Amino acid sequence: MKKHYLTLSIIVLISSVIKAQSDSAMIRKIYTEALSNGKSYSNLDYLVNRIGGRLSGSPEAQKAVDWAFKAMKEAGADTVFLQECMVPHWVRGQKEVGKVITSNSKGIKEVPVCALGGSVATPAEGISAPVIEVMGVEGLQKLKRADVEGKIVFFNEPMDPTFIETFHAYGKAVNQRWAGASAAAKLGALAVVVRSCTLVQDDNPHTGVMGYKDSINKIPACAISTNAANWLSTYLKKDKDLKFFLKMNCETLAEEKSYNVVGEVWGSEKKNEYIVVGGHLDSWDNGKGAHDDGAGVVQSIEVLRIYKAMGLKPKRTIRAVAFMNEENGGRGGKKYAELAKLKNEKHIAAIESDAGGFSPRGFSSDVTPEVKTKLKSWKQLFEPYGVYNFDRNGSGSDIEPLADMGVSCLELMPDSQRYFDYHHTSIDTFDAVNKRELELGGAAMAALVWMISQHGL
Amino acid sequence: MKKHYLTLSIIVLISSVIKAQSDSAMIRKIYTEALSNGKSYSNLDYLVNRIGGRLSGSPEAQKAVDWAFKAMKEAGADTVFLQECMVPHWVRGQKEVGKVITSNSKGIKEVPVCALGGSVATPAEGISAPVIEVMGVEGLQKLKRADVEGKIVFFNEPMDPTFIETFHAYGKAVNQRWAGASAAAKLGALAVVVRSCTLVQDDNPHTGVMGYKDSINKIPACAISTNAANWLSTYLKKDKDLKFFLKMNCETLAEEKSYNVVGEVWGSEKKNEYIVVGGHLDSWDNGKGAHDDGAGVVQSIEVLRIYKAMGLKPKRTIRAVAFMNEENGGRGGKKYAELAKLKNEKHIAAIESDAGGFSPRGFSSDVTPEVKTKLKSWKQLFEPYGVYNFDRNGSGSDIEPLADMGVSCLELMPDSQRYFDYHHTSIDTFDAVNKRELELGGAAMAALVWMISQHGL
Repeated sequence: MKKHYLTLSIIVLISSVIKAQSDSAMIRKIYTEALSNGKSYSNLDYLVNRIGGRLSGSPEAQKAVDWAFKAMKEAGADTVFLQECMVPHWVRGQKEVGKVITSNSKGIKEVPVCALGGSVATPAEGISAPVIEVMGVEGLQKLKRADVEGKIVFFNEPMDPTFIETFHAYGKAVNQRWAGASAAAKLGALAVVVRSCTLVQDDNPHTGVMGYKDSINKIPACAISTNAANWLSTYLKKDKDLKFFLKMNCETLAEEKSYNVVGEVWGSEKKNEYIVVGGHLDSWDNGKGAHDDGAGVVQSIEVLRIYKAMGLKPKRTIRAVAFMNEENGGRGGKKYAELAKLKNEKHIAAIESDAGGFSPRGFSSDVTPEVKTKLKSWKQLFEPYGVYNFDRNGSGSDIEPLADMGVSCLELMPDSQRYFDYHHTSIDTFDAVNKRELELGGAAMAALVWMISQHGL
Repeated sequence: MKKHYLTLSIIVLISSVIKAQSDSAMIRKIYTEALSNGKSYSNLDYLVNRIGGRLSGSPEAQKAVDWAFKAMKEAGADTVFLQECMVPHWVRGQKEVGKVITSNSKGIKEVPVCALGGSVATPAEGISAPVIEVMGVEGLQKLKRADVEGKIVFFNEPMDPTFIETFHAYGKAVNQRWAGASAAAKLGALAVVVRSCTLVQDDNPHTGVMGYKDSINKIPACAISTNAANWLSTYLKKDKDLKFFLKMNCETLAEEKSYNVVGEVWGSEKKNEYIVVGGHLDSWDNGKGAHDDGAGVVQSIEVLRIYKAMGLKPKRTIRAVAFMNEENGGRGGKKYAELAKLKNEKHIAAIESDAGGFSPRGFSSDVTPEVKTKLKSWKQLFEPYGVYNFDRNGSGSDIEPLADMGVSCLELMPDSQRYFDYHHTSIDTFDAVNKRELELGGAAMAALVWMISQHGL
């Protein structure tokens, strides 16, 4: 009996060594394909330079849907289909105007501002009011109504540069953008001006979604560039009675019909088990959505292309999903999960790429401890490719509704240092993306999909 | 007795836990200082934008020496001094001209070329000759004299995109740049045109040093952009008898006197034990030497600044060295080692930064297995900062002469994906460097210096 156990153990050991070797060789082949024949960069060129900014409900968003359908077909998907969903339709209108007017009315300085997504307009003639500067919503809450009433609140909490991961700094500072307007309106403010969420000092205002509390008066909300924010803060100390002038005519129109685009490479053994790779197709209107999130979309399509070009037969079905409306509503992500539930689809995992097309460093995940352990056991297969971190928690916002249903959700984790230089600005353009960094992200996703497809999760 | 051993063991264990905690806290403080008050970016701005390209022997190189001296003083160095060395003085002369002339002489296309560093000039009227394309020096060696004689050899081996580390691809392809001219001259070639060492397709020729074998006729050598190289290769297939016209008037002048710049923060316990941090001050003349190697110089100066600004007292002396002449001679590195030997200085370690100011991923090292083990035992202290790789072998070329003397030599290992986009070109400029990525490199070096200073190596 003992002898049999020993033989069995040796067989198991040898077979697991062979399996690891063949996974390692397969991952090497996937990277070779991605770096030699990658199409993600030329796809991004088209999406970003031919279509451009593509906010939900816009004609450009519809063009992006049509393009993604075609791109998935060209990648060789076994099938491509659309998932209809209704999306908010907010439009920026004419270029916003922000000015600082000295208390003696002699000096006027125009400053770079842009409406936050979802904001109401100012009256047609604009708003002009004294300014009160605060550090975040917490800072505001230390004030009384008399300090704030009739004024424009200037939220000037900077992102903290000492965080190593810039997303952590963003997470800490972004609340004033999201919740500042209603918090200020509650105290009688007329509008809010919010310091851009970025770690660089420059002249680009960063937009981004904001929300209103139902019971509170809606007031206009804009972002101001970090250079202008610093200048305003300094100048306010000299001239407390200066006024800020703001004019915006953004508005929320009726909801529009839009779509997620879904492409599949069918599984050879378990066709009805799905592994999702995805990014979001919509982007803010002021830039071209190259890093956010053209990158994630073209990387997801690239996963399909790699499998078809290499003739790989994954055991389970791979679904690339170009989600609609991540930026200001998340309707696409919700619709995807709703349909998955309705059809009782078995999802093994979902991997989002929505942190920019930078050099990948790992995958964060929102999974059980057992699944985390399994993911970490694959770490050594990925380390030769600079993908070493499987420890972090978290996944993408488009797949959050899947995570809520218990699906193992992950996110590609690229180097985060440059992301907020471009995020939600006019400089989120094609030339900000490096071809190899983009390709390595798609390769990492394709390789992880291989592991999940063959070994489950 | 047993009880005493147990007590002793507990004391040792507790003290080592406390030590690790205090190292961890110190590293956190170093990063906070670097990311909050860093001066490396503004220093780089000055070096790159006010002084610019600074090839050895040029007036700009002398300006860079003066600047580095001042910058180290301003960083608070306890002392700053110069080390004199003689350096080669090669000058590019007028803008090079490269043209492809069709065999019927009707079509002429100008292509982007630049002289390789150290090349001789063409005759004043230029050289015009048929072209033979080869893949590297190996490809050339398959040919006979009759295939090559009287021709211009076009070395067109591309960098292999499937390597994950771009330096590995560079290492494989660069031989045709270094050794191509003499190999071609040996077979009677008149000149060589070498595909630029880069993984991008663009119009920037990449210069870099080349060498001649003493006994062989010296022929002119230039780099051609990758776009032009691909075009030439394609066009050659249609028109085998086309001619390439090359005109360059570069020349090697008499050697010049130059300097390494050395700044110290004195050790509190072992002042005569040195830890070197360094980069090279010289750069190619066609760009501004931002990544190569302005970054390494300002990061090294930043190490001094961090220690002085924080009031840290390292046990051993830290020396920041701005080496002269890495690009075309390595005289500064040799001089430093020569003087260290002459003065019998005890060097504990040397860390170079010469792989660009990108997001750091680790430190490579050229050390004994015992030292490697010690370095790897510190890995967990650095992982929270994205610095996870202590496995790789290798160090910087300026400190190679120290390595030859048995000093433990290391190199900061940043993400390598973008380096060869800029390397030795006109686009190696300030705007190609990200502030945070640069600062994280200086912080990583300062943190590693702390560990070595306190615990030896």
